[in-house]
Amino acid sequence: MTTPGTPVAPPSVTARDAAAARLGQLATPPGALGRLGDLAVRLAAMQGQVPPAPVECVRAVIFAGDHGVSDHGVSAFPKAITPAMVRTFLAGRAGVSVLARQHDVAVRVLDLGVDDDLEGVPADVTAFKVRRGSGAIHLEDALTCDEALRAVAAGEAVAAEEIAAGAQLLVSGDMGIGNTTPAAALIAASFGLPASEVTGRGTGIDESGLAHKTAVVQQALDRAGDRTSDALETLTALGSADLAASAGFLAAAARSGVPVLLDGVISVAAAVMADRLAPGASAWFVAGHRSTEPAQSLALDKLGLEPLLDLGMRLGEGSGAVAAVPVVRSAALLLAEVALLSDLG
Amino acid sequence: MTTPGTPVAPPSVTARDAAAARLGQLATPPGALGRLGDLAVRLAAMQGQVPPAPVECVRAVIFAGDHGVSDHGVSAFPKAITPAMVRTFLAGRAGVSVLARQHDVAVRVLDLGVDDDLEGVPADVTAFKVRRGSGAIHLEDALTCDEALRAVAAGEAVAAEEIAAGAQLLVSGDMGIGNTTPAAALIAASFGLPASEVTGRGTGIDESGLAHKTAVVQQALDRAGDRTSDALETLTALGSADLAASAGFLAAAARSGVPVLLDGVISVAAAVMADRLAPGASAWFVAGHRSTEPAQSLALDKLGLEPLLDLGMRLGEGSGAVAAVPVVRSAALLLAEVALLSDLG
Repeated sequence: MTTPGTPVAPPSVTARDAAAARLGQLATPPGALGRLGDLAVRLAAMQGQVPPAPVECVRAVIFAGDHGVSDHGVSAFPKAITPAMVRTFLAGRAGVSVLARQHDVAVRVLDLGVDDDLEGVPADVTAFKVRRGSGAIHLEDALTCDEALRAVAAGEAVAAEEIAAGAQLLVSGDMGIGNTTPAAALIAASFGLPASEVTGRGTGIDESGLAHKTAVVQQALDRAGDRTSDALETLTALGSADLAASAGFLAAAARSGVPVLLDGVISVAAAVMADRLAPGASAWFVAGHRSTEPAQSLALDKLGLEPLLDLGMRLGEGSGAVAAVPVVRSAALLLAEVALLSDLG
Repeated sequence: MTTPGTPVAPPSVTARDAAAARLGQLATPPGALGRLGDLAVRLAAMQGQVPPAPVECVRAVIFAGDHGVSDHGVSAFPKAITPAMVRTFLAGRAGVSVLARQHDVAVRVLDLGVDDDLEGVPADVTAFKVRRGSGAIHLEDALTCDEALRAVAAGEAVAAEEIAAGAQLLVSGDMGIGNTTPAAALIAASFGLPASEVTGRGTGIDESGLAHKTAVVQQALDRAGDRTSDALETLTALGSADLAASAGFLAAAARSGVPVLLDGVISVAAAVMADRLAPGASAWFVAGHRSTEPAQSLALDKLGLEPLLDLGMRLGEGSGAVAAVPVVRSAALLLAEVALLSDLG
C-alpha cells in the first residue's frame, strides 16, 4: 500500500477558474443552476478540462464484510443477511442493482470479510477476502495490523482495476450487518466526538437498542484510546476489513485524480479515513446523499461536503450514491451544452 | 373548457394499500428506501397497478408568455429575452433542453402570450397564442375573461395531445420575463397571504428591486380584491396567458389520471390554480424541486407536497422538474424490481 500520510494533489485551479468563468457566460441568470453550477465547476477542476467531459463511465464497488459486534445486539438483523445480500447483488435484485441498471452504472461486489464461505459464488468475488468476520471492536481489535494493511492494499488494487476499466467516477458501497457501528466509531475517533453524537439506528433498532449500541461504540472508543491518532491503527482497532478496503479504494481514487461519489455513513467513514491516509483526498469526493445516520452528516460537515440528495434513504449498498449519479451527469452536461449569452440573437 | 369546480377522482386506494404492502415485503430494512418508497406507493396508486409500471414516457410542455409588469421594474432582465429563449428551446440549447436529452424527456414549447411575432418559428409553436403580452397586473387585468377561458382550454387541449402521445408523466414548465410576479400574486390571492410573504428575487433583483416588486404584487392583490374568491377570475385578474394555460394543462392531466411533476414557482402557482379549477387535482402532482422563491415553498406546503430535489435551482423552464425525473423513475423501478424477503435464500 501507499505510505500513509502522502498528500494528494488537488484538482486543477486553472480549470476551476475557467469553468467558473464559463458558468458566468451561460445564457441563464447568474446562479440559476444553483448547486448544479457549483458541481459542474468542481467536476471541471477534477477532470482538468473546461467544459467537463460527460460523466459516462461510472463504476460502483460494494465491499462486503461482517462485524463481530453484530453478535452483541447492535443490529436489528442477524449476520446471515450479509451472505444472502451478496447473492442478491450477484442476482441483480438488490436496491443498488436496480438503480445501477437504471443509470448504467457497473456494480462489482467483493467479499472482504463476510463470515461465510460463500460457496458457489464466483471466485473473483472472494479474491480479496481478508478474514471471516472482523473483531468485535468493543472487546478486541477489528483486524490485525497485517490484515489492515492487506485490506487497504486490496482497496487500492481494486480502484486501480476500476480506473483501468475506464471509470470516470467511482462509487463506494458497503454491505454487512452491524457496519454502522464501526463506521460511527471511526468517525467519532477521527473527530474526537463522543459515541452519543455519532450513533444512529442503522437498519432500525429501537430506543433501548440505540442506548446499547451507543455504549458499545463508547466502549470501543475507550478501548482504542490514544491509538486513534494514527489512521492505520484506527482502522486496525475500530474498523473492519470492508471499511479498511473502502478507505484504500477512496484514497487510491483521489491519488489517481478520479472523483468519487460517496454514499451513506459507511462510505463517508471510509472517506474520513481515506482523507487521513491521503491528506487532501476529500477534494476528490462528492457527497451523493444525506442518510439518516447522525455520524454521516457530522462527517460530511467536517469534510466540507454537502450531499446532493436528501431522500431519507438508509439502505446502504452504495444505493444513495448511485441514485445521485444523474445529478452529477446533469452538472457536467449543463456546463458543456447550455448556450452562451454570446450565442443568443 | 371543463366546468370549473368539477372535482377530480383520487388515485386508487386499493393500489396504494397493495403497494404499501409490497414495500413492506421488499428485502430491505423497513423504511430504508425513505421517500423513494413513499413515492413508489403514490405512483402505484396513480397508475392503479402494483407494482407500478416503469415511467418511461415523460413529456414536458413549456408555456411561454410575456407579462406587462416586466415593463415596470420587477425583473433583472428585459422582455426581449423571452422570444430569444423560445428560439433557444427550439435549438435545444436551454438548460431544460440539456436535461431533457439526458433523461429522454420530450420537450414542447408553446407561445401563449409572447410579446413578439416569433417570425420564422414553426407554426405549431404559436398555434395556441392568446395575445401578445398579458396585462400589467398591478394596473389592469392580465387577460379578458374570454382570453382566460381560451388559455385554460388551450392547456387542456395540449394535455390531451400529450397524453394521446403516450405520456405517463407530464412536466409543466414556463418561460417569460416577469413571470414570478403573477405567480406570486396567484399564490398570495389563493391562500390569503400578503405580498411580503410571497415575493422573491426571481432571476436576481437587488434589495430595492425586491421592495418595488413586493409593492407591485400588493398593488395587484389590492386591485383584484374580492374577485380572487373565484379561480377563473383570479387567473383573469392576476395571471397571464401562459399561467392560465398551465393551470388548464395541470387540471386536465389530473382529470385524466396522469401524474404531473411540478417545477418551480410558476409551475406550482399553476398547480394551485389547477387545484382550485379541479378540486383534488393536487393528489396527482409530485413536487420536482424546491426553488429559491418563497411563494413556491409556501404553496407546496399548502398542497401537502415535499419536493424531491433541493439544489438551489431557479432557472425555470421546467428544468427543476426534469432534473427530478430519474428520481421518479427510480421509485417505480425499486418497488417493481427489488427482491422480496421471500425470495432470499
